[in-house]
Amino acid sequence: MSQPAKPLQRLAWHDGTMRDGTRMVAEEVPVAIVHDGATYAVMMASPADLEDFAIGFSLTEGIIETPDEVDDLELVETDLGWVVRLWLSKRPRAALTARRRHLTGPAGCGLCGVESLGEAVKPARPVGAGRPLTPLALATAFDAMSQQQALGHLTRAAHAAAFLAPDGSVTVREDVGRHNALDKLIGALAGTGIDAKQGAILMTSRVSVELVQKAAMAGVPILAAVSAPSTLAVKLADDAGMTLVAVARADGFEIFSHPHRIQPEQEQTRVA
Amino acid sequence: MSQPAKPLQRLAWHDGTMRDGTRMVAEEVPVAIVHDGATYAVMMASPADLEDFAIGFSLTEGIIETPDEVDDLELVETDLGWVVRLWLSKRPRAALTARRRHLTGPAGCGLCGVESLGEAVKPARPVGAGRPLTPLALATAFDAMSQQQALGHLTRAAHAAAFLAPDGSVTVREDVGRHNALDKLIGALAGTGIDAKQGAILMTSRVSVELVQKAAMAGVPILAAVSAPSTLAVKLADDAGMTLVAVARADGFEIFSHPHRIQPEQEQTRVA
Repeated sequence: MSQPAKPLQRLAWHDGTMRDGTRMVAEEVPVAIVHDGATYAVMMASPADLEDFAIGFSLTEGIIETPDEVDDLELVETDLGWVVRLWLSKRPRAALTARRRHLTGPAGCGLCGVESLGEAVKPARPVGAGRPLTPLALATAFDAMSQQQALGHLTRAAHAAAFLAPDGSVTVREDVGRHNALDKLIGALAGTGIDAKQGAILMTSRVSVELVQKAAMAGVPILAAVSAPSTLAVKLADDAGMTLVAVARADGFEIFSHPHRIQPEQEQTRVA
Repeated sequence: MSQPAKPLQRLAWHDGTMRDGTRMVAEEVPVAIVHDGATYAVMMASPADLEDFAIGFSLTEGIIETPDEVDDLELVETDLGWVVRLWLSKRPRAALTARRRHLTGPAGCGLCGVESLGEAVKPARPVGAGRPLTPLALATAFDAMSQQQALGHLTRAAHAAAFLAPDGSVTVREDVGRHNALDKLIGALAGTGIDAKQGAILMTSRVSVELVQKAAMAGVPILAAVSAPSTLAVKLADDAGMTLVAVARADGFEIFSHPHRIQPEQEQTRVA
C-alpha cells in the first residue's frame, strides 16, 4: 500500500547555498467520524487505515465496547477530506443518544468551566495483571517498531504506535498525530483474536494523559514511550494499575509506575 | 518564576542495572477557557502564562480582534485544574453569541460530516509583506530560543514558540502542547507594542495545519519550525502568502512556500 505522503518542491539551504529539490511530506487531512448520521469529531489525520481509526476511536471514546457493535462502516472521500460513517447496533446507539442529550445542556452555566475540567480528565480504566516483560523484550520490540515505520522513515514527521503481543509479534500503525496512531492500532487489534490485556503498547512520542486513557480503555497493562510523560499521565497510569515506561532509548529506559511488570532476567541483573 | 514541572520518583534501567532516582517531569493540567460564563474549550496545558494563553487562544480563534476586547480576566485554580474566565466587550460578546446559536444546530444532519470538514480546515488569513530575513538571522534566533527554553531543558518534554522581532529580540513561551505554546506567545505579544506583522515565528515542533492558521491570525508572515510540515500545512501557508521554513537544523533549513522573504546575504551566496 502506498504511504500517505507526497513529494513537494522546496528550496534547501545548506552550507551557504540554496538549492532546488523535493522532499516527501506527510499528508494530513480532516477526517470526520460520524455515528448514525451525526458527526462526533473531526480530526486531522494521515489518510491511511481509516477503518482502524474509526473503530479504535469509537472504542477508546467508549462509544462501542467491541467492533461487533458497528453494524456497518462506510468510507467517503471528498474534496475536503474523509468522512467515516458508522452505523451502530442498538445498545451503543441508545447510549450515544443519551450522552448527546446530556451534552446539549445550557451553553452558559453557573459552574463556569469547573464541570468541564472533570470531563477532561476522567480516570483511566483499571487494567488487569497482564504479563511481565524483560528489558530485552522491550528493546527488541522498539527495534521491530522502528523497522515498520514506513511513513516515519519516508517523511520524518509521523508518529507510530505498536502492540507487542505475548508471542513477540509487533503490530504497527502510523499517523501524523500520536493519538490517531494509537487509535488506529487499537482498532487494528480489535478485529483480530489478539488479547490486548496480555501485551504492551509502544509509542514514539511523549506520554500525555490521553494516551494513558486510550491504552487503559483497550485494557493494555504496559505503556512504553520514547519520550517523557507528563505528571498527570503518570498519576493516571499509577491509579489505573498501569506500568508506565518512558524515555526509552537505545541505552535504557525509565519506569514511572507499577514497575513489577518489568522483570530483568537473572543473567542481566547478575552482570550488573 | 518556577517552571511548571515537579520531581517524580522513578526507576532507571541502564547497562543492565535498575536504579532509583528522580526526574523533573512537566506538569499537564486541564485548562478551561470560559467566555462570559460559557466554556469554549478545555485543553491540556502547562500551568504557566495562562493569561497569555487565554488571550492568545481567543485571538487565534477569532473571538477577539485585540486584547482590549477583554473587559476582565480571572484565573481560578481548582483541585482539577485551572479555569480562565474572560468577560468580553460588546462586539465580541455579540459575535460569539451569534456563533454559538449557529453551532447548536441539529446534531444529526443530512450532510453527515461533510460540512464539518470545511469547518476544520478554514483557509489561513492572508499575511502582509513583512520583512526579509537572512539565514544567519534565522539561525541566531533559533539559538536564542533554545537558550530560553527553561521548561524544555528541565523536562525534555515541552515545546517552545518564539517570536523574532525586527530588532532581533526573541520572545519565548513554552508548553507541553505546541498549539498552546503558540497561543501563549501570540497572547504575550498582543499586550505589547511589538508589530507581529514585521517578525517571524519559530517553533520547536512539526508544522501542522493549526500552527499555520494561528500564525496567520496573528498576521505573522514567516513561520519557521525545527521539524517537517504536513502537505496541508504547506498548502495553507502558500495560499496565505506565508513563508514556511521547516526542517531547521544546525546545518541548514528548507523553504516550502514564498521563499522571497529569506534572503541570503551577498557574502554567503558568493562563498557558495
